[in-house]
Order: sequence, then C-alpha cells, then structure tokens
Amino acid sequence: MLCAIFTSVVEAQQSLNLMPLPEKVQAGNGRLVIDRTFSVSLAGHHEARLDRVVEIFLGQLRQQTGMPPIDMKVTDSASGTLVIQAAGGTKQVQELGEDESYKLDISDSGAKLKAPTTLGVMRGLETLLQLVRTSSDGFAVPAVSIEDSPRFSWRGLMIDAGRHFIPLDVLKRNLDGMAAVKLNVFHWHLSENQGFRIESKKFPKLQEMGSDGLYYTQNEVRDLIKYARERGIRVVPEFDMPGHSTAWFVGYPELASGPGPYQIERQWGVFDPAMDPTKEETYKFLDKFIGEMAGLFPDQFFHIGGDEVNGKEWDANPKIQSFMHVHGLKDNNDLQAYFNQRVQKIVAKHGKTMLGWDEILRPDLPKDIVIQSWRGPDSLAQAAKQGYRGLLSSGYYVDLMWSAERHYATEPQSGAAASLTPEEQKRILGGEACMWSEYVSPENVDSRIWPRTAAIAERLWSPQDVRDVNSMYQRMAVTSRWLDGLGLTHNSSYDPMLRRIAGTDNIAGLKALADVLEPVKDYTREETAPAPATSASPLNRVVDAVRPESATARQFTDAVNELVGGAAKPGVEARVRELLNRWRDNQVELQSQFEKSLLLKEVAPVSQSLSALGAAGLAALDYLDRSEPAPAAWVTAQLALVEQAKKAQAQLLIMVAPSVEKLVQASAGQPAPSSVPAK
Amino acid sequence: MLCAIFTSVVEAQQSLNLMPLPEKVQAGNGRLVIDRTFSVSLAGHHEARLDRVVEIFLGQLRQQTGMPPIDMKVTDSASGTLVIQAAGGTKQVQELGEDESYKLDISDSGAKLKAPTTLGVMRGLETLLQLVRTSSDGFAVPAVSIEDSPRFSWRGLMIDAGRHFIPLDVLKRNLDGMAAVKLNVFHWHLSENQGFRIESKKFPKLQEMGSDGLYYTQNEVRDLIKYARERGIRVVPEFDMPGHSTAWFVGYPELASGPGPYQIERQWGVFDPAMDPTKEETYKFLDKFIGEMAGLFPDQFFHIGGDEVNGKEWDANPKIQSFMHVHGLKDNNDLQAYFNQRVQKIVAKHGKTMLGWDEILRPDLPKDIVIQSWRGPDSLAQAAKQGYRGLLSSGYYVDLMWSAERHYATEPQSGAAASLTPEEQKRILGGEACMWSEYVSPENVDSRIWPRTAAIAERLWSPQDVRDVNSMYQRMAVTSRWLDGLGLTHNSSYDPMLRRIAGTDNIAGLKALADVLEPVKDYTREETAPAPATSASPLNRVVDAVRPESATARQFTDAVNELVGGAAKPGVEARVRELLNRWRDNQVELQSQFEKSLLLKEVAPVSQSLSALGAAGLAALDYLDRSEPAPAAWVTAQLALVEQAKKAQAQLLIMVAPSVEKLVQASAGQPAPSSVPAK
Repeated sequence: MLCAIFTSVVEAQQSLNLMPLPEKVQAGNGRLVIDRTFSVSLAGHHEARLDRVVEIFLGQLRQQTGMPPIDMKVTDSASGTLVIQAAGGTKQVQELGEDESYKLDISDSGAKLKAPTTLGVMRGLETLLQLVRTSSDGFAVPAVSIEDSPRFSWRGLMIDAGRHFIPLDVLKRNLDGMAAVKLNVFHWHLSENQGFRIESKKFPKLQEMGSDGLYYTQNEVRDLIKYARERGIRVVPEFDMPGHSTAWFVGYPELASGPGPYQIERQWGVFDPAMDPTKEETYKFLDKFIGEMAGLFPDQFFHIGGDEVNGKEWDANPKIQSFMHVHGLKDNNDLQAYFNQRVQKIVAKHGKTMLGWDEILRPDLPKDIVIQSWRGPDSLAQAAKQGYRGLLSSGYYVDLMWSAERHYATEPQSGAAASLTPEEQKRILGGEACMWSEYVSPENVDSRIWPRTAAIAERLWSPQDVRDVNSMYQRMAVTSRWLDGLGLTHNSSYDPMLRRIAGTDNIAGLKALADVLEPVKDYTREETAPAPATSASPLNRVVDAVRPESATARQFTDAVNELVGGAAKPGVEARVRELLNRWRDNQVELQSQFEKSLLLKEVAPVSQSLSALGAAGLAALDYLDRSEPAPAAWVTAQLALVEQAKKAQAQLLIMVAPSVEKLVQASAGQPAPSSVPAK
Repeated sequence: MLCAIFTSVVEAQQSLNLMPLPEKVQAGNGRLVIDRTFSVSLAGHHEARLDRVVEIFLGQLRQQTGMPPIDMKVTDSASGTLVIQAAGGTKQVQELGEDESYKLDISDSGAKLKAPTTLGVMRGLETLLQLVRTSSDGFAVPAVSIEDSPRFSWRGLMIDAGRHFIPLDVLKRNLDGMAAVKLNVFHWHLSENQGFRIESKKFPKLQEMGSDGLYYTQNEVRDLIKYARERGIRVVPEFDMPGHSTAWFVGYPELASGPGPYQIERQWGVFDPAMDPTKEETYKFLDKFIGEMAGLFPDQFFHIGGDEVNGKEWDANPKIQSFMHVHGLKDNNDLQAYFNQRVQKIVAKHGKTMLGWDEILRPDLPKDIVIQSWRGPDSLAQAAKQGYRGLLSSGYYVDLMWSAERHYATEPQSGAAASLTPEEQKRILGGEACMWSEYVSPENVDSRIWPRTAAIAERLWSPQDVRDVNSMYQRMAVTSRWLDGLGLTHNSSYDPMLRRIAGTDNIAGLKALADVLEPVKDYTREETAPAPATSASPLNRVVDAVRPESATARQFTDAVNELVGGAAKPGVEARVRELLNRWRDNQVELQSQFEKSLLLKEVAPVSQSLSALGAAGLAALDYLDRSEPAPAAWVTAQLALVEQAKKAQAQLLIMVAPSVEKLVQASAGQPAPSSVPAK
C-alpha cells in the first residue's frame, strides 16, 4: 500500500483534526468504513476495567454514528474490525506516571490498537473516536498510523464545587470531556468559605450546617471516583486549610481562631476566618477528618489548599500570639508553615502525599510534597530547584475569561523553568486548568470550561513544539462539536440562556450582539460590580451567557487584518461589510425588546456602541475603497467613539472594537498599530 | 383592584399560552414578580409527597428563571409568595379518578393555590410554571384566577420499550414532559417479539435470553415508579400475550404453540408465535410471573395486550386443534377468549384489574376490565354499551406521523360514543397517546412524542369545546420551548442529527430542506422500504431526523392560502417569495455536499424536487402579480412536476408541494381546490 508521509506535524493537524495532537502521525491511503458490523477483538492482556472501557467506547461510537445498541459488539474472534492488544493491565489505584502511550494503526481493512496498559488503550480509543467522520461510503476513519504518548504525566482540571455547588451529573459530563481530550486528573475543590460540599460521617455538622444542603454523599463520591477510573482519570480531593474554611466553622466554631459564631460566607474574596494552628484539638479533628477522607479517596495525593490566609484572626487572638512567641514563630508565614508541617504528618500518617498551593512551599517540608502554582513557571522552577515536584495552574485559570490562544501559550517549562537541569525539569509534573466558581452555575459551567480547556489539554499532552495557533483554533472548533455529543452543554446552553433573557424565541438580534461580546477579564467583574455579587446572585445575565471567547470577533479581527494589510482574499471585504451592516442595524431590531426585559435592558448601551462601531467601520471602508483619506475631524470623532466602545459596559467587552479602530486608522492613512492588542 | 374578565376562552388562550387550557380563566391586573425571594408556604394538609412536589416545583422554577439553589425556599411563615392549601393528601397508590382539580389565584402581591388533594396541587403548580415569563421587572406571572379540573380521568402516554429499548433516563425526561401537560398515566409496553425488557427473578431467562441485554432491573422499575408518583403519574405495565411474545419463547419455548426453537425477532410486523392456551403449564407460568409483576407494579391496572394474534401456530398444532374440538371452541377467537378468561382470573387473583386492546372484548369477561381501543370511538361505544370501561388510542398513535391538528380533532366522545347515555359515557375513561417504537431510538423518540402529544393532552384535559386549531398551534409552540427546559430533546436533537448526516457544521442547506419535509405517514415507511427494516437498522437517516410535522410548511400553507384567497396581509408575499427563492437555490448549496455523505445522498432527488417547486412557485407568483394567466402548457408541465414532488422519496414527503400546486393553479386562473389536502 502506498503511504503518504506527512512532512510536518502541521500538515497532519490540518488533515485529521485531532486534539490533543499526537506525537507522531503518518497518513495512509484509503479509509476504514464503520458500520453496524464493527466489532472489537480483545487480543492482549485482559482485565475487568478493559471490558468497561470498550463498552464505553462502543456506546460512544454508536452515538456518533447513530448505530443501534444491538450491533457493534466485542467478538470472540481474533479478527474484529478493531483489535486491541494491551500488554498489561493497570494498577488497582491509578498512579501518577502510569504508561499512557499507545500505537494506533488503521488501514482500509481494520484497526489495531496496541498499548502497554489499559490506560494507553483508553487514550488510543479516544483518538479513534476523533477520527470518525461522515463519508460517501457512510461513516469511516482514515487510514493512519499514530504513535502517541503524553508530554506531562499530570494533566488536570480543577472544579471548585465550594463557591457554587456543581451537581454530580454536571461533574460526570465534564469527566467525559476530560477523557475526550486525554486529561487524567480531576481535582475536586470540596470546601470553601461559601460551602463545605462533602458528607463527613465523623463530623456531620460540616455538611449539615456548612452546605445549605448542597453536598455530595459518600456514595456519590464513590460513584464519581468509579466513573473517573473507567475513564482513566484520577480524583484528587482538596480541603482548603487553614484559610478558605469559614464553612467548616459554622458547625465547628472551636476549630477557628476567632470567637465566632460563624455563618456560611455569601460574598466573594479573601476572608479572615482561619483554623487555629495552636490548638491540639485542631490536629485531633484534622487527623480524624483526613483519616476519613483518605479512606474515601483512593488517590495517592491529598490537597490541603493552603492559599490566601490573611492572618487577621491570628493577629487578633492573644493566645495565638502568645503561642507564636513561645515557639519562636516570628510571623504568620511561620505559623502557617508550622500548621503545614503538622498537617503534612497527618496526611502522611494516612498514607497520602500532600499537595498544596504555592504558599505551602517552605524548605522544612519533606521533598515528596507537590506544589500547585498559581504564581507561575518561575515559582515552579524555584520549587523544582529545591527538589519539590510542581504543577502549573497560573495561566490556566479558565474563570479569568482569557482567550484559548493565551492559555495555549502558557508553557510549564518556560521562564526560569526553561533553564532547569533535566532532572529538575522532570519535577514539573504538568498542570491543571482551574475552574473557580464565583460566576458559574450548573447551567454555564461547561461553557466556561469548554472548549478552551482542550487547548490546555493539548499544551500538556502534545510535544512542546506543537504551537500553531491557527491550527489549534481550527481543531478546537471541531473538538467543541465533538464534545457536544458527550452531553456537554457549552454550546447547547447558549440559545436557551439568551431566550430566557429576551423572553422570546426571537433572539436573532440579541445573538448578533452576544456573539461579539465577552465577559470582562481577570477579576474585573468583581471590581466593576454595581453591588457586590454573592453566592445568591442569579447567574442569568448576558455576561453569564456570552462565551468567554468570541469566535465571530476572532474571525472579524483576522479579516480586518487581511484588509488593512492589503492582502485580503476575494469575499473578505463583503463578509466584513455584512457584519458591520448587521451590527449597525441590529440596534433597531433590538430596540423594541429592551423595554420588555429587565435582563436585556442592561445591554442597551452595549448594543448602541456596537451599532456605532458598525457605522464607523462601514464609513471607514468606504473611504478606503475610494482611496480617499478620511477627514481628520471625522477620524477623531470615530476614535473617541471606539475608545468609549472599548470600555466595559454591563461587565461586557465588545471584542470587535479594536478592529474597527484599525479600520478607522487605516481610512485616515494612519499607520495601524502592529497588531490588535492581545486579549 | 380592577379586573378584566375574558369574554371568551379563546381570548384567555391567546394571552396566557397555557396548555392544556384550563376550564375557567379570569385575568386580573398587574403581575406577581418572581425573584430570588420567592417562597412557598404550606398552609393546608401536609404529606411527605407534597414536600417532594414542592421541591421539584422550586427546582424547575429556579431553572426557568436562572435563580440559585440557595434561594426560593419553603418558608415556615404563612405569608410565602405562594401559599399552597391542600384540603387532603393522596392515596397510598395513586388511583384512577382521584381528584386533580385546583384553584389558582395570582395577584400582584402573591399567589394562592387551593386543591382538594396533593394531585391537584401538582397540576396547579404546572400551570403556575407555564405562566412565568420575562418582563420589564424581571420574571413575573400575570395576575389571574384559574379554576381547573380534567375532563377525563385517564390521560396516558404509552411508550413501547419492546421494539426498541428506551433507557430509563429517556423515560424519566418524558415523564417530566407528561407531568408538564398534566398527563397522568404512563403505560409501559414491556414485552414484544423483539424484546422482553424487564428483569424477572422467577424466570430470569426471559430477560437473559430475550432482551439482548437491554432490560430494566427491578430496582430501576421501582425507581421509575417512584419518579412517576412524585409527578402524579400512574404506571401501568403491559405484557402482551398470547401474541407479540416471541421474545418470551427464546428462554421458555415450552410456553409457545410451535415447536421452536425461537430467536428474538428482528423484523417488524405481526408474527406467528403465540402462547399455547391449551397447556396448564402456560397458566402456571403466567400465575407466577403475573404474581411477581403484580408485586412490583403497585397500580390497580394490569395490561395483558391481547392484540394481533394471527393464529397460525394454533392452526398448525394438532394438540391445540384437538383441545379446541373437545372444548367446543369453534375458532381462534374463541380460543383467545378462553385464554383471556383464564388470564383474567389470574390477574384478578393477584388483586389487579385487567386491561387489554380491543380484541379482548368478549361478553364473557367480567365488567371491571378496561378496553383500550386502537379501532376507534365506535368500538369504544360498543364496549361502553355492554358495560365495559374504555380508553381511546385510535387517532392518538404518534408513530403514524400525523399532524397535531389531526390528533387534536380526535374526540373520544365522537361517532357512536357521542350518542351514549350519560352513564355509558362515563365509561369512557379517556385516552392514551401511543409511541410504538419501530422507528424510534433514544435519540429521536422525544421528537416523535413532543410537542404533538401536548395537543392530545389538551384534548383529554380541557373542556370539549376547546378546539381552536390556530390557538392550539400557537400555544403548542410555546409549550414546546417550555418542554426544552425539562431536558426533552425534541428540539435539541435536530441539529446534531443533521450535522451527523451532513458530516459538517454547515447545515444551512440541509436544514432549509429538512424543515419542509416530513416522514411518510401511517405505515407507508414499511411499505416503501427498499429492504425490510429491522431492529438493527440504524435510525440515523434524514427520515429519522425530520420532524413529524413541519411548522415551516404549515406557515407556508397559511400564507399561500391568504395570497390565493386575495386577503394577504402586507409582507406575506415577500415571505412566500423568500422561502420559494431559498428552496429554488438550495439545491446549488447542497449539491457539493451530497457526494461527501452517503446519508445525505439519498435526499438529492428530494432536494431537486424542492428546487423545482421553488422555481414553479416563483413563476406562478410572477404571473399572479402581473394579473396575466399562465400559459396552459406551462401550467400542465408545472402540475406534472408538482404531482411528482408529492410522491414520497427516501420515505419523505415535501409538505409544501400542495401549496405550490395551489399557486400554479391560481396563476392559471383555475379554481383552487377548496383546501389543501389534510395531512
């Protein structure tokens, strides 16, 4: 058989739309038809987990192709359409660093998947599913040879179930999404000032008084862990201490450093309550509690949080001050280090390895602990030099509403980490996308995680030199649709949320507007809130519905750059004009709706600005088309208008404003800025 | 407070979009704002079921408004936003005829819901949820007074889980839909030639050998019954016998009248295998089996099917022939009647009331049995005259792909049933929509049931004189969207299915086509299949994705009728032209896609026909606009083309063909037919 060998990774990317991109891809000729006679042979090592993995795979393959459940089966014959050959099984409890590599060979007559472990089989099956497409022969996968293994062994997603409770079914569909893009650690942030989210049988007042009734039972936790294991995902629990712990103190005020009583916190931010590190009772409590949780969560790692203690309760408590004096603890950092040492011994006693945020890093802790960095690669490098293993999360906070491009550019082995010795570099285990949940509900959490987390997953799985942004966006769009089929609601929740806001089925106008909006970035939402948001604030506004990254705006930016650069392909100007026209006229369409809906009304000024941008852009194009420099006064007025439109309104940004600015500048004959400012 | 009293039911319909329409509606002034402070007081009779009902209600209210779970609670105070006053509770097992009436009074300061039972509370809460809308003050319900009670006490939906297995979660979301439109009986068709779908502990080979592994465990059944009870829905199981029972015989061939062995049937139709009514072992088996199921299903009624026995196995079995001779059974009808009498005694012995299809009606059965009629109101009337209670299902078969209008026009008390005495009329308990599942999968079953079943639900709940078709369609469209929020996929599955068929995100062309198509009606799909469909046939074709009733075609028909009638409002012709243009040009857009997808290719000729219809319609309009009679030869050619386009292709009907025909006829100056033929 003739084989076309891809000359570059990029070429394979374009062709196959895989994400994360495999290490090595070699295209073949022809394709393997997938119909209802598709069958699977299990030729290698066999364990019960593999049966379940194949069952999940077949369910998904049937779903992707619309095949009935009575076909597409495991066959006893050795000549199934897909032959799976695992050399070995997996550990009883999934371990960090277990081999996830696989080889997948597809020809027009069949597919072979070889892997050293069942984990590798899982990863290969996801690749196979991504290759399924519609063809003139029905469904098919292209002939291809793939060799693949991950760059980092820890590729995680953290979901904060503390600030907003995220129900089990929502977590499960997100685990499906994780498995689809080969993430392998679900970091479950289970306690916060705003809620304690897990049933403790030893200390039931934790959930009874600290959760508003919104918590996971231990049976549900076991169920989730099983679900994750079937998808090759470890589950690492986090119990944040000694800060971020108000919800613990509602039922157990004696743990706290202040006088109490305590209420579940409703606001967002960093708060004063902290555990009392000076009382032996605190450690007795934690010993029992951590013991209980260590029995529930089989994973080797146990996350104790450890971030953002403001120390105010400690400062105000004379007994704590006296303890510090007696023990020579010169400041609150020392006191927290003392606490961490004590907690680390408890964690270790229960057979676990401690994990915590940057702040826990102090040379007096044993070298087996792991640092999760919200500060950046330099902090990670510093830890690695001291012999500590670390994970990068700085740059992967999906709640900050950054572009996928920006997350994608975040490299764990950059900065100071790039110049580590090979041995030190090995201590950088990988990273985790973090979904902090101040502004997410079960309804919109998927749209905050996906599809951008697929770009982070690729950063953590694929070779370091895979960084073509256009290719990433192209493949991420395909992956986003594929994730729809798993039941993720990042796309499907958009229209219903807009319909609720508008109070009508007729959302064409609102959608034209919402499609070019993004929520404000970083922590601006808190800073610009007219009244402080709380955990009781409805998340049903336009800012909660719009996507973190506007695809329309990105495409518009590209088109304007082509136009202004003088290298526009035919049709580009027409497309740009069509959009500008739509925006200019959209205000008229929406006008009658604003008065009917309180939720819609707050974006009336945003719509007004977009309309003005549309008019400005069209006029600028007219000048450009006539090769007539726009009058200076007009340009000044338009730039002022653009400047206004760039400002956040209703906590929303109009993402096309910078490109309209570029058009206006170009129409004036002014040099365009070197690029549209990065989002 | 000033009150505007609606002068007609129709006026209330237009304003409130309730479905089913309540018995009495009186509008008030103002509205009650629904925000996160919304609370519920339970002022009347209290039972555990009521707490759960209110919890479900609040969950749904939060979902509709996007409110957080920590607000909108039950309050101890007597002055909640909504005060619920139930006079009594409900029966331990929900009974036929339990009072479901309620009174709902909403003013701008609060809402009061009064009902004699918790069941009435449930129905009233659904009405309240339907009233929630977006307003300039946020979410609100209009001030209104409603008195409501159902016309019929048995308002059911049957789902056939035998021919295609329907997973539990799919059933649950359909129960949500049932509750939303006040249906109160889920009839669960659990055994068929193609599958035995429930776990029997006494006869495990039933599910082990008769289900392809696709069956409900007894725990799942209990779970579903509980779920239904919380929504005021009775669950009536059906085990079809003595025919439709091949799947039983795979594990227990000794029950059958033929020599066996038996395989699970894969084809559709009426088959020969039938239980042997002459062996005592059959009744011993059924005694144990019905006893087991009677213990599992608490409902008073037990459905034994009893339909479509072709008698061939009986004819061919000498022992059976000899038995008939000895017992003076002159034909197979007599033999089945003998079987039914025996089975009825077993059903009664286990404390249940027997229910069966038309065929079981024989004067020798006791008067407490219930007849479900697939034959029609006359058959129902005949049963009622003999003293039997009955249900109408003829006219409510949603698998036949009829329009909502046609189902809506089906009246249980019509035909011979209209002239029954009042006492006889009372024996007509209601009716059931029937979802037979030859061509449904978990993916498209919702779209076959909804929204049309809402029209059937209204027929069974609302006063007999509620029959304004336009109002029904208007309210059904609103209800359809509302059902989306319950997780029903009748709308949301459409685009993903079309994307799979096209193999691309760009489905604008396919959608323009699919939007005016409907599956062939009645049993034409079987009759026109190129090869016999089986239970293993993928249900991923265009015919499986298109809606049973095309809203676009209905609107087009209305517009054409206006135009041809000379009473078109401004803009109607423009809209008609826009659609015709789209259809004419759509073929060009789709052309390049046909070659890329096998599933799409089969509709290439359909698209071609639609394109020709578009061109014909536009030309006809041109003639009409110029008041110039179209040339006879052109008219003849167009009518031939329309005739061709009316024929089913790929098992699809182009629903706009009759209206284009009307335009062509009008352009020729020919008298239009009195109306477009009924679908």
